[in-house]
Parts: sequence; C-alpha cells; structure tokens
Amino acid sequence: MVTQNFKEIAEQFGTPLYIYETDRIKENLSVILKFLTYPKHKVYFATMCNNQPEILKIIKGLGLGIQVNSDHELNLAKEAGFNSSDISFTSTGISKELIKILIEENIETNLDSAEEVGKFCAAIKNKTFGIRVRIPKRIKVNPDKATNIFSDSHTGIEEKDFDKIKEIARKSDNKITGVHGYFASNVHDTKPFIEFGNFLTDAALEFTDLEYINFGSGFGVRYSKKDKDFDFEKVLQYYSSLLRKLSKSFKREIILKIEPGRSIMADAGTLLVKITNIKNLNSRKSEISVNAGFAELARPRIYNSYHEIENSEKTGKPERVYDIRGNTVLQNDFLGYDRTLEEVREGDYLVIKKVGAYGIVMASGFPGKKLPGQVLINKDKIGME
Amino acid sequence: MVTQNFKEIAEQFGTPLYIYETDRIKENLSVILKFLTYPKHKVYFATMCNNQPEILKIIKGLGLGIQVNSDHELNLAKEAGFNSSDISFTSTGISKELIKILIEENIETNLDSAEEVGKFCAAIKNKTFGIRVRIPKRIKVNPDKATNIFSDSHTGIEEKDFDKIKEIARKSDNKITGVHGYFASNVHDTKPFIEFGNFLTDAALEFTDLEYINFGSGFGVRYSKKDKDFDFEKVLQYYSSLLRKLSKSFKREIILKIEPGRSIMADAGTLLVKITNIKNLNSRKSEISVNAGFAELARPRIYNSYHEIENSEKTGKPERVYDIRGNTVLQNDFLGYDRTLEEVREGDYLVIKKVGAYGIVMASGFPGKKLPGQVLINKDKIGME
Repeated sequence: MVTQNFKEIAEQFGTPLYIYETDRIKENLSVILKFLTYPKHKVYFATMCNNQPEILKIIKGLGLGIQVNSDHELNLAKEAGFNSSDISFTSTGISKELIKILIEENIETNLDSAEEVGKFCAAIKNKTFGIRVRIPKRIKVNPDKATNIFSDSHTGIEEKDFDKIKEIARKSDNKITGVHGYFASNVHDTKPFIEFGNFLTDAALEFTDLEYINFGSGFGVRYSKKDKDFDFEKVLQYYSSLLRKLSKSFKREIILKIEPGRSIMADAGTLLVKITNIKNLNSRKSEISVNAGFAELARPRIYNSYHEIENSEKTGKPERVYDIRGNTVLQNDFLGYDRTLEEVREGDYLVIKKVGAYGIVMASGFPGKKLPGQVLINKDKIGME
Repeated sequence: MVTQNFKEIAEQFGTPLYIYETDRIKENLSVILKFLTYPKHKVYFATMCNNQPEILKIIKGLGLGIQVNSDHELNLAKEAGFNSSDISFTSTGISKELIKILIEENIETNLDSAEEVGKFCAAIKNKTFGIRVRIPKRIKVNPDKATNIFSDSHTGIEEKDFDKIKEIARKSDNKITGVHGYFASNVHDTKPFIEFGNFLTDAALEFTDLEYINFGSGFGVRYSKKDKDFDFEKVLQYYSSLLRKLSKSFKREIILKIEPGRSIMADAGTLLVKITNIKNLNSRKSEISVNAGFAELARPRIYNSYHEIENSEKTGKPERVYDIRGNTVLQNDFLGYDRTLEEVREGDYLVIKKVGAYGIVMASGFPGKKLPGQVLINKDKIGME
C-alpha cells in the first residue's frame, strides 16, 4: 500500500473503511498482460468480485472488457461506460426475458444449458452465442483455498448434449461461436489449469463456427505469506500455446478470452478497522475486538479464508499473540486466529489485507451494522463516491 | 400463510420478495407468553434476526422490549419508538465511546469482559450493569441444526473472574444487577437449555445486587416437517421454576428475561421467487433456477440449513424431483436439494418458507444482485416501506 497514513485516513473518513489503490489494479493487470503472449486476446474483468462504480470506471479506463452475471451487473457495466461489444454475459438459469434483453442489446452470451439454447434459438435467427461447458470431475482442485468449486454442481452443458444444441442452433440459423469454461475460484496449483485448458480446447474443436474460447479465471491470490505467487507465466503461456494450435486447426485466428477478477482486485483493497476492546485470554494471548467482522468481510467466516492482519503503524512495543474478532454477538465472528502483532491498545487501527475482491460485494452488515465506507487512492488523491 | 395469492403479489410487487405476516408474529409471541408462567418477566426481541423498521414497529406495538448488539441497532430501536427502559444491549468488544453512550442514554448493558467492566467503572459511579457469562463447554449442543455455537469462542466473563469484577464494581460504587447468558441459536433439544438454566442461575447467586437474569434465547424453529415443534412449555416453565427458587433465595423478586428472535420471526416470513430456467438433469430429476439464492437468503449456503420450498399454487401436474438454485455464477448457490414439487414451468413462482429471521439481514446481493423487495401483510392490507 502506497500510503502509510492510515491514522489520518481513519480520522478523515471513519472506520471500518475499505481503501482501494488504483496503482495496484494497474500493476496486477500488467502482470497478466505480460504473460498473455497470444496476440489475439481479450481480458474481461469479473464484476462479481467488486462491482463498485468507481472501480468499474477504473477498469473501463484500463481498456478491459467486463464480465457480468446478472441484469443488475449489466446495468452497472453500462453505467460505468462499457459498450455492448466489451460486455460478456455468463451465468446460470437465464430466463426468456433476460435472453431477449441480451439479444436486443447485442451482449455476447454464454448459455449454460440446452434449455437456454432452445430459448435463445426460439427468440432469434442468424445470431451467434457461446456455451458454458460442464467441467468433468476428473479435473481435481485442492479445496483448501479454492472457493466456488464445481464438483457438486451441474453448471454448464455436458459434452453428450453438444450434438443436440448444434442441431437446435442449425435449425434456427444460429451459430455457436464461443466456448466458455470455469472450474473454481482462487486455485493455486497450475495442474488443474493445464488439464482444464486441454479439456476446453478439445471441446472447442467440436464447434466449426468457433470464434473464441473463454477460460474464465480462478487464478489464485497469495493471501498468506506461506503461499507462493500464482504462476501466471506458466498458465497464461500455456493457454497462449493452446490457442496457437487451435488457430492452426481452424485455419483462422481464434480469440483467447479470460475473466480475471480476484487477481486484479484482491491486493488493491485493504480494510481499515479500529480496536474496540482487548480481552486478556491468558498469559500468551489476548482477543482483540474490532469494528468489522462478518458484517463487512464475509470470507473468513464463509470460507475459513486467511487474510493478513497488520498494525496500521509501529507501536514500538513487544509482539504479542492475538485472536481478532468482530465486535458483535456472533460468537464465531473471527477475522484471524493466533496473529502476532506489536502490542496494541484500544483505539489503535489494524489493516486487513487483500480484501479488494469478494470484500464489499459480500458485505451484508449482519448483525446490526451499516455497510462500511470506501475510499479510493489515486496516486496522492484520496476520495470516493 | 394467510394469503394464497402469491401470483397477484408477485405481479404487484415483483420478485424476489420477502413477505411478512403480522398475525404470525403475534401468534408466535403468544405461545412464548403462555408458557412463561413466572409473572415478573420481560421479553426482548432479538433485533439481529430482523431489523427492518416496519417489523420493529410491530414488535414495539406488541409491548415487547428490544435487544440490540450495536450502536446502529440502538438507533434503529429508538427510531422504531422504543424507550431506553425497553432496550437491552449485549454484544462483545464494547468500546469506551459506546459505553459512554450507553451510560448517557441509560441503556441496560450486559458487559462481556472484565476489561469492559473496567471501562464502565472508570466512566461512571453509582450505576448498575449486567454481565454476560462464559458458558462452560460441558453444556453440549447438537451442531446439526444449531448455529452461532459458543464452543469455539471466548464470549462472556468466566466464573474465575467474578471476584475481580465484583471488586472493580465495588470500588466505583457500581452494582452488578444482571446476569446474561447465551449459548447458541436454533437449538432443538431441551437438555442444553435445562443445563444452561441451572448454570446461569447458579452463577447469578454470586451477585448479591441481582435484579434480573437473562437467558437469551436460542429456541429452535421447526424448519423441516421432520423436526418437532420446539418444547417451549418444558423450557420456559423450567426457567420460571428456576426464577421462583432464585427469588426465594434473594428474598425479593428477580426478573426473568429472555430474548427470542427466530422463534418470533422465522415462520412470519416467506421468500417468493420466480423460476428463470429448468435444466433437465436425468429422467428422475431437474434443476430449477430461481431469481434468488445466496444473494437474498444466505442460510442454506452458510449453515447448510433446510427451508421448505413449495409450489406457489397447484399446477395440477404430476410430482417431480428438483434441485433448486440461484440463477448466478456461484456453482454451489443451492436453496434446496431433492425437493418434490408438482411439475413446474419457467415463470412459475415458488415459496421458500420460514425466512423471516436471518433472511433479509444476511442478504448481501452477492453476486451481482440488488437487494430483494419486502412487503408486510397486516390482515388484508398489503404494503411496506
């Protein structure tokens, strides 16, 4: 984080407070672009990880496309200035009404079921659409860190239904021009990406009108210092190599699409919180209550996820071990266990790191809180909404 | 539910829609009051389960007190017309600033730690406060249905610290007049309530200035037809008998307090949703997507909790087995598995039952949704906010 003036920010804007940094967003994107060596590519930002208007405007300013999963997100994208040609829609259970809207607004849509293909093709002729493909269970993901794992879902269209949907498309003079896949979020190992890439590319060969292949995302974030940085080089260069081969097969350039969200936003966001009480547990450990918890940041409780927590400034005191929890009646409202910090006092601030993705969007205010404030740091300029 | 005109309501107010019924709230309260045979009692509504302004006004109209766990909930209670004398504050990690507010506004407060007792007694003399007591781990709760279980928390003040806090209170001429306990939410067995009641009453004997004992709540709700109704008779009559004995010991009438929330609100709320797609899985089962999921109702995903799901009206078709999920990119966004319904079509409505507690308050809109609408049915009158 560029700034270290957390105390000033806290006093100016109050806490709990999400702080976002434009520069980190840019730097994260540059890492991705560096390794996406296949030239005909398009990067869509996964709105679901952070749909705040100011963030979407930054994303738009960086020249990215945007991936949306609902009519509400579609409207947010349009309000942030995205054109139809830069919006990709992928979801599940898309209704007739929404399909009509997506067709009318000319939004690239990846359909999740044969039934949706049927509805699309009943509504329009001479149009194109993509499909979301069912991921086979043989592609294994380590569930320790990953979230939104596919193994218990029926998301996507199975290979056995490919002939059926091709026939539906053919009869209505529609073309299946895209293949989309997604298997899980925050995946750290590269192996499932390689297997998934191979699978999706093979599936894509079935569709003679193919124009793009969309690998979604799922790129892991180094939340803990014990983790490694995600190996973008390996995965994105592999995807690039797959696309070179695929383009050769099709004798034309197929577009490589990805939809990163977490890897662009996570470490661009920090949650600044204030200590409201310190409860002595034993000679070794105390429990810090802070003015944020599940209400503001749901990931630790829902996913048992790890976020680094740090002193907002040096206290100059010896280190001590702390559990850190929200100051609510929820008994299991913990943000971190057994964290070592320089000794703190009530009123001090702590920073909870890498919460720019799946932070504010999952905040419910439960129990009994207002939603937290948010500010954006754009070089030296601080402010938002 | 009084009304069966779900289709009319859906067309008038749109979906997804929370529908609340005033009459159910009253009936649920009457069951509780019937078995609370100890005359000197006070019932506080647990705001955390549903803090919507119109609901709080109904609760106020029923003559209940209100339990709040944050400054925001305190403000909501005041806005709904509650007087200070009807508000009880219990939380964790209460800051110096908030303690000052609670003292100034004369709010009955149950302090969660020796540290908070220290802060309270540094701020004021000749005042009273209650304490929240640590629940011993020997009181076991079946975790299958219960939520917010205490076993992994350090909530409350341990018995070993009673002498210390009594001394702090004595030195500042403050009196410890209340003992509060809470062990978990949605507990179905009566055994832990009996054990907990005994424990809390024993703890209360330690405090010579005692005026009240607050058993909190945790009363289970019959979410599934396989469950039984919660045995209010057994638990509340047992609490009543405990208070009779306690009053004899103290040679004055001690007040019996409870804080129900879920048992008053759960079945007074229904979520009305619309089917957006039906995906055939196999000859036995299909997957229904509806326009609500984790975004609107978080309990199924967070707690793996069961809510009955029904056709909004007879379809007259044979029954079929369905999984029911939110129409989002979340792969595990399920509201129910293997539910038998009369066969449905896209555009039909379903009702998700007993969501009046921990429904709207836990709704985040994630991923990519606006928060759902809400209406209140007051006899024949429908409308809200």
